[in-house]
Amino acid sequence: MIIVMKDGATKEQIQHVLDRIHAVGYKSHPIYGTDKTVIGAIGDERSRANPEQFQTIDGVEDVMRILKPFKLAGKELRKAPSVIDLGDGVKIGEGYFTVMAGPCSVESEKQLLEIAHEVKKCGATVLRGGAFKPRTSPYAFQGLEEEGLKILAKARSETGLKLVTEVIQPKDVELCANYVDILQIGARNTQNFALLREVGKTKKAVLLKRGMATTIQELLMSAEYILSEGNPNVILCERGIRTFETATRNTMDIAAVPVLKKLTHLPVITDPSHAGGSWDLVKPLSKASLSAGADGVIVEVHNKPEEAMSDGAQSLKPSKFADLMQVLKKMAEIEGKKI
Amino acid sequence: MIIVMKDGATKEQIQHVLDRIHAVGYKSHPIYGTDKTVIGAIGDERSRANPEQFQTIDGVEDVMRILKPFKLAGKELRKAPSVIDLGDGVKIGEGYFTVMAGPCSVESEKQLLEIAHEVKKCGATVLRGGAFKPRTSPYAFQGLEEEGLKILAKARSETGLKLVTEVIQPKDVELCANYVDILQIGARNTQNFALLREVGKTKKAVLLKRGMATTIQELLMSAEYILSEGNPNVILCERGIRTFETATRNTMDIAAVPVLKKLTHLPVITDPSHAGGSWDLVKPLSKASLSAGADGVIVEVHNKPEEAMSDGAQSLKPSKFADLMQVLKKMAEIEGKKI
Amino acid sequence: MIIVMKDGATKEQIQHVLDRIHAVGYKSHPIYGTDKTVIGAIGDERSRANPEQFQTIDGVEDVMRILKPFKLAGKELRKAPSVIDLGDGVKIGEGYFTVMAGPCSVESEKQLLEIAHEVKKCGATVLRGGAFKPRTSPYAFQGLEEEGLKILAKARSETGLKLVTEVIQPKDVELCANYVDILQIGARNTQNFALLREVGKTKKAVLLKRGMATTIQELLMSAEYILSEGNPNVILCERGIRTFETATRNTMDIAAVPVLKKLTHLPVITDPSHAGGSWDLVKPLSKASLSAGADGVIVEVHNKPEEAMSDGAQSLKPSKFADLMQVLKKMAEIEGKKI
Amino acid sequence: MIIVMKDGATKEQIQHVLDRIHAVGYKSHPIYGTDKTVIGAIGDERSRANPEQFQTIDGVEDVMRILKPFKLAGKELRKAPSVIDLGDGVKIGEGYFTVMAGPCSVESEKQLLEIAHEVKKCGATVLRGGAFKPRTSPYAFQGLEEEGLKILAKARSETGLKLVTEVIQPKDVELCANYVDILQIGARNTQNFALLREVGKTKKAVLLKRGMATTIQELLMSAEYILSEGNPNVILCERGIRTFETATRNTMDIAAVPVLKKLTHLPVITDPSHAGGSWDLVKPLSKASLSAGADGVIVEVHNKPEEAMSDGAQSLKPSKFADLMQVLKKMAEIEGKKI
Repeated sequence: MIIVMKDGATKEQIQHVLDRIHAVGYKSHPIYGTDKTVIGAIGDERSRANPEQFQTIDGVEDVMRILKPFKLAGKELRKAPSVIDLGDGVKIGEGYFTVMAGPCSVESEKQLLEIAHEVKKCGATVLRGGAFKPRTSPYAFQGLEEEGLKILAKARSETGLKLVTEVIQPKDVELCANYVDILQIGARNTQNFALLREVGKTKKAVLLKRGMATTIQELLMSAEYILSEGNPNVILCERGIRTFETATRNTMDIAAVPVLKKLTHLPVITDPSHAGGSWDLVKPLSKASLSAGADGVIVEVHNKPEEAMSDGAQSLKPSKFADLMQVLKKMAEIEGKKI
Repeated sequence: MIIVMKDGATKEQIQHVLDRIHAVGYKSHPIYGTDKTVIGAIGDERSRANPEQFQTIDGVEDVMRILKPFKLAGKELRKAPSVIDLGDGVKIGEGYFTVMAGPCSVESEKQLLEIAHEVKKCGATVLRGGAFKPRTSPYAFQGLEEEGLKILAKARSETGLKLVTEVIQPKDVELCANYVDILQIGARNTQNFALLREVGKTKKAVLLKRGMATTIQELLMSAEYILSEGNPNVILCERGIRTFETATRNTMDIAAVPVLKKLTHLPVITDPSHAGGSWDLVKPLSKASLSAGADGVIVEVHNKPEEAMSDGAQSLKPSKFADLMQVLKKMAEIEGKKI
Repeated sequence: MIIVMKDGATKEQIQHVLDRIHAVGYKSHPIYGTDKTVIGAIGDERSRANPEQFQTIDGVEDVMRILKPFKLAGKELRKAPSVIDLGDGVKIGEGYFTVMAGPCSVESEKQLLEIAHEVKKCGATVLRGGAFKPRTSPYAFQGLEEEGLKILAKARSETGLKLVTEVIQPKDVELCANYVDILQIGARNTQNFALLREVGKTKKAVLLKRGMATTIQELLMSAEYILSEGNPNVILCERGIRTFETATRNTMDIAAVPVLKKLTHLPVITDPSHAGGSWDLVKPLSKASLSAGADGVIVEVHNKPEEAMSDGAQSLKPSKFADLMQVLKKMAEIEGKKI
Repeated sequence: MIIVMKDGATKEQIQHVLDRIHAVGYKSHPIYGTDKTVIGAIGDERSRANPEQFQTIDGVEDVMRILKPFKLAGKELRKAPSVIDLGDGVKIGEGYFTVMAGPCSVESEKQLLEIAHEVKKCGATVLRGGAFKPRTSPYAFQGLEEEGLKILAKARSETGLKLVTEVIQPKDVELCANYVDILQIGARNTQNFALLREVGKTKKAVLLKRGMATTIQELLMSAEYILSEGNPNVILCERGIRTFETATRNTMDIAAVPVLKKLTHLPVITDPSHAGGSWDLVKPLSKASLSAGADGVIVEVHNKPEEAMSDGAQSLKPSKFADLMQVLKKMAEIEGKKI
């Protein structure tokens, strides 16, 4: 940690900072410049003594962190990329480009099975489908709950697709984990720490979506919650952040893909459906994601978008999805990735 | 709902939209302009047939909502401002300016009682203090949990201050409700719908903070979750949104206060400590909040900010808080508000 | 334009709105719903009578535009994509992927010629180099001005590369136009309307960068300024918008590429150097741009980044640029684009 | 400047950084921590050797500035607040709360004189009115230009009000300076450095608005451009930044007022009309500005908002403005400010 003193900070103020540094078990290292005094504090900033405490001391102008606040998600302890194995040859991470596809919500057995067969045929390996839906309005369709999970399980047994579904509160984690292969943490729960801890206690793969106002570093800290509970199977997902632009539902932060790849060993996928919010953006955004280094995408597919109970506007029809898969396969080949 | 057709939309496409409008039980009302056809669809958009379904229909360019998606939080059903009565003369809403103050975290009995007596003396009527702390890092202090609640209760019995504390997961709601007067939903849980429903099932007052990327309309929809469960005692709190500016921790959206006052009957307060992230911004932001029409503020006060386990940088020392209260009292008088 | 009246708007208020609609030469078309009255106003919203005037009328709740505010930039009058021909086979637009490369600033003849030969060898067709530099600080290097333009011209005559340079004020337009092939409008001048008009009076190609807080629609309106002066040769450039994320210099809005392609016939390129702000993001962001449908990229290349007078951190060394070109050529082939 | 080396940076890499530090004339001061090496570089970062050059050196992880990049705008050289004297007792700065009011655009002599007399009567001391209008659309009303300036001058001679008008390009500076007392730089030109230099060459007071995506630090750097040309009469203006919230036209960053007051000696005012974009927000935002420490406001007033050629929706009618002035006078008294 670097502590920058104000111009004209007094000797007493500087000494007080040094004393506080020693009191929390750090070593101090002052640099006396012509205008300013800067003090290096050497120690593990991830311990309880947090940098902001120093901010309040008289004479302190600024405090800058040096160490990244995450450990397990970073590359210090684990340099090789993590590959998550869901079994039956379905892997997520380095060397693979995994396509997860399906409807926003599980609406009925007929709907889900029909879509499941379609996406399977095109080459998807994971089926998505929401049984518990976090909706902005209390009056909107909230999902079929356990009945939805059962329908998902049936689709898996019929198609062999792996399953991903969103879990929205700690008490549902066990139930969902009994039915699916990947537990999804949605964008509104990226910093729902109680929920993160709960999925961390399982060994299930967790698809952790970035929140609309979550920084890349905060996303990694949320992953750290899961990892620190003992579950190493975390997949990160860029799904668009909130900005001033209203032409798209969110703004896909495509650079987050290579930035995350630089910072973490965890697999990184994107969600072009939610990022763009419009079905005709799914193809260019999926291609861009693959090119930027993503390990996969999660895409909304619906057989009758105009009757969908949620997210119809951003869902691909199966024929469009087939077309997308064709292109992605060609691109994955160039990149040396299995799809 | 208004549906705008693309230039050159065919008769068949227009007819298909009309058919869909009728199929979901709305009335249609087309306007044939020189360039474009626009179709009014008359019905309750808050029902299950949501506007976005129409977005996917061939030939449709855009869909615009007309009705506000919230009912109970709005002023249609309840025009008079709601005033929440915590008992013993402590009220929140029209005619009052309520000051809630205390440390970010309950750290010890000694710490809390000392601060409680200080803020009481200065004129605060509600004591804040976190027992369950939602922290970005899993390695940071997570709160004293039930022990913290007991300390809070002790402070209430000693000082007569009402209590507000944050609840971070559904299963803690009952426990917290047993100890405190106001349940706080933090900024990371504004759209944690499971938690909102749970606090909605109690009759406790709920302090609902706006999330960092929550729009004003979404905040009202989150309030709607609580209200629709039967709990009318919701207090909204502007606490800064996330923007590109890094000179402050967040950007206080001061206009949210009068905008909310126009849209809802619920009380609106602000959190100048989290909005600014720096103790020396608390005074100007508190004054600005009062002037903009807020019904109160929640302020962090700590007797030893440089030793605080969280949020020290934004905490006022008791002497600064006393000074703030002096100014607020003078201002409240001009505004005709009781403090 | 659609005018939404408040609940309980009076007959007189509605009549007043109708009168105003007729007064500005529009036709009115009221829809009386159960809760609200909505009035369609049929006419060209791009005329002087702007929608916001209606916003102030008593009883009006909201006003929504129907027509897009741009004409020449849109696809109504010109459906086919525009391809800008710089001569000697260098084209920008549909069917091409144009790579513009070079240093941020022209620093010396030696520097520029060396880089020019390098980028030419790798396959770039346009050389970038700033002679007039818009710098945040008045104390930073401001460019070699006309001397820089002369050096650029020399590089063109030696390599055959076309030239792009930034122009920062109306009075420099003629001078710059005498030397280069493309006039660049930088991100801080996207809405410098006097400058837009001035480049609109030339017939030179104009590279119009999106500002940090410019919406896609506003970018098109800025293009409209240039087009409406009679210059059809506008190239749009996504270069990152400003968001809360600080891990990158800006946030590349990759979806802006397909969204713009949908709205306009003008060529669209991206600037991965400024968007990411870091040399190691240039490759993934360039690839993503090509995949998302961009017609080219503009990339900063410097032979000695650590001595660059500006933007060293985001400049590629020539060897990295060579590597990038290899990949882009392979990708362009799949997309059926000439590079 | 602090240079943070990557984990495992080699001795050679560290030495290379030290060599570069010395090469640009700085002193080096390395700190060898257990995990990382951090190097302090002591020297004036505002010189040409800019921090980002160091970012590109192999083995460097991060570079942090220590010194603020502005000099003349800061408080190091001038501690006392600047008060700008426009003559005839009209002053802007510490101890005053100056109200500037008038229409967005000068539309006609009749319109302007009528409004001028109204705002004068209520206590405004400066009249605003645009003669050159920077409009998003080339098809919108662009102002009366010099004719508008003449009308403004007439209003001054009739009322004694001082004048502020926007200047949009360097060549108009002299013309505008001949007519008015304050030259306004609009939000789209905050970083139009050529224009800043030009107004810096005059001695006229300059009202510098913050751009929609301009940070507080960048605003001060833009002020520095004007100051460094020899013009000390700069007034800063917070007018709302662009965020995701769409309920208001922009988001007023109220904390920018006290933050700027801490960083600079220059006067700071706000523009509640543009920040909120709605006439009914002008009062609460003006009051909040005064309470937060602003030295004044600039407010749009129009006698017939629904016929205004620009910004009608955010303009106060004279009666509302009179009401606002009443409240502001009462508040200014408490704050010890002359209005």
